This record gives sequence, structure tokens and C-alpha cells, in this order.
Amino acid sequence: MKSSGPILRSIPEGDDRERLVCGDCGFVLYENPKIIVGAVCTWGDRYLMVKRAIEPRLGYWTMPIGYMELGETTEQGALREVWEEARAVAEVDGLLAVFSIPQISQVHMIYRARMVTPEFAAGPESLEAGLFGWDEIPWDHLAYPNVRMALDYERQVKGRAAFAPIGL
Amino acid sequence: MKSSGPILRSIPEGDDRERLVCGDCGFVLYENPKIIVGAVCTWGDRYLMVKRAIEPRLGYWTMPIGYMELGETTEQGALREVWEEARAVAEVDGLLAVFSIPQISQVHMIYRARMVTPEFAAGPESLEAGLFGWDEIPWDHLAYPNVRMALDYERQVKGRAAFAPIGL
Repeated sequence: MKSSGPILRSIPEGDDRERLVCGDCGFVLYENPKIIVGAVCTWGDRYLMVKRAIEPRLGYWTMPIGYMELGETTEQGALREVWEEARAVAEVDGLLAVFSIPQISQVHMIYRARMVTPEFAAGPESLEAGLFGWDEIPWDHLAYPNVRMALDYERQVKGRAAFAPIGL
Repeated sequence: MKSSGPILRSIPEGDDRERLVCGDCGFVLYENPKIIVGAVCTWGDRYLMVKRAIEPRLGYWTMPIGYMELGETTEQGALREVWEEARAVAEVDGLLAVFSIPQISQVHMIYRARMVTPEFAAGPESLEAGLFGWDEIPWDHLAYPNVRMALDYERQVKGRAAFAPIGL
């Protein structure tokens, strides 16, 4: 009988937790927490932000951030998102935040990065991109609480070469 | 025809990368990097280490470390591993290291933690557990280069309340 993928719950032999198994072929899906990588990028005193062109939170603002892909480091993933969403080139110089969200099994790793040039543009997943002074940031239209927390912490550690990342 | 799970490579509609798809039911497997969490735990000047009872690196020593599970934070995962592998109770007090290993799409997050009591014992995935002074650590029988790097960095930041994690 067609089960349409790994949708049956059972404990595989030698395991101690329920996993999702496909009734057609026996494939066991080992689900693991997903990593989201992003970067608070600055050019001088201004912050690089993008307006989301996709759900969830379409039309709200965030730093460039998205799912880490296979075959990259966390820093490379963060800078890839900066390029994909804001068409900017940046360099990582510290880990700002590690936010675990166990309710949805995500770990957000947000870096501090400096833009290498002042160029930017909206990528395909962004409606707009912008470089904002602190007071110009669209504070009332941020996509997630993490965005504000990461921006606040970036400001707090400005000028410090080394700092501990904040967490949740 | 039975394809035995998501083993066919194709680019799903609306995506821009090849994913593994099941030829039986069309299930798309979005593979993501996996998070490994662990902790360098100390009791006074001594370090909690376990001898692996499972492959890979069976018989070699490491700090407690393993796959992060769904529904937990990175800190909770690290402390769960401390309990599962070394039957010790500890408290996290900082993030020591974030090691990306893009060749195998893993991110290792290793915390600094203090044992709450001096009790420990080998868990089911360990042949032995031990509390070692620095010079007693089985340096020639460590499971991975990450183990030495995390131990060295713990020693380097000893006594410091806040520090940046090292990375690869």
C-alpha cells in the first residue's frame, strides 16, 4: 500500500527513539535539528537589511539569513545568504549569536560581518535591500525577535575584537 | 518499481539544487548539515573523558559528544550527551568551539561545562569513563583532532568568564 514517504512512526532496531519510516520501502528518516545561518553586515555605521519576498513573514525585514546547505562551513553559509539575498560581498569577523529554538528544532547562528564594498541589491528572495543607519532600521517591521536581538548585540560589542556569542 | 527510499537525484519544482527523491512515492529528502554537540567538563582541575564503545574510533577517547536530537537546545544536547556517555551531571558556562566539517556536512559545537558532583560512570556507548589531570589525559589515544583542540582551548581560556569560541 502506498504510504507516500516516511510517515509511519516506529523505533528502528538498535535505536531508542521513534523515527519516521516509509511503509513502502522501509527507509528510515533520521530527522535532525536544522541550522540557519546569517550575518549582521555593516558598511561603516550602516546595517544591511533585506525585505523578505517569500513566506513566512513576507514583507518584513531581516538580516540576510537562511538554511545552511551541505558541503559548506557555517561562515560560508552565512556569506552565501548575504550574497543570495542582498547581492553583497562580506567577510565574517565573529560569531554574534547562537539561538536554539527547540520547539521547531532549529539552531540559528548569526555572524558579525563587514561588507567588502558598499554594493548591494535585492536578490531573488528579497523585495528590497537597504543599508540603514541605526535609527533608520525598520524596527516596527522586523521579521523575527532574533533580528532585533542580533542587531542590539552587534551594537553592544561594536569595536570589540573578541566576544562571547549570546544565546537563548 | 521499488526504488528503496529517496535515492534518485533530481531538482524539485521551485528549488535550485539536486535533492534525493523516492521513485516510489515522490518524497523529497532535504538533507541538511548535522549538528554534533559535546562538552569539555571539568571537576576542579580534572577533565571528564570517555572511551568509545562504538564505531567509528572504537576504543579511543573523547569528551562526551554526539548528534543533537530534535526538541532540545544545543546546551541541553551537550549535557544529555554528558549524561548518556559519562553518567555525569554538568552545567554549561560557555561555548568553546564551533568546528564546521564541510566534507561530511557536520557542525560540531563544543561547550565548556562544570560537573555539579564528582560522580561519573561509563554509559552504554562508553567502554570507560574517567576524570583525568591534564598530564594524565590519554593524548596518544584521542578519537579526533577536535578533541585536542577543544581541550587546548579550554585550558587557554581557563578562568575567563567570557571568550569567543574557536572555529575551523
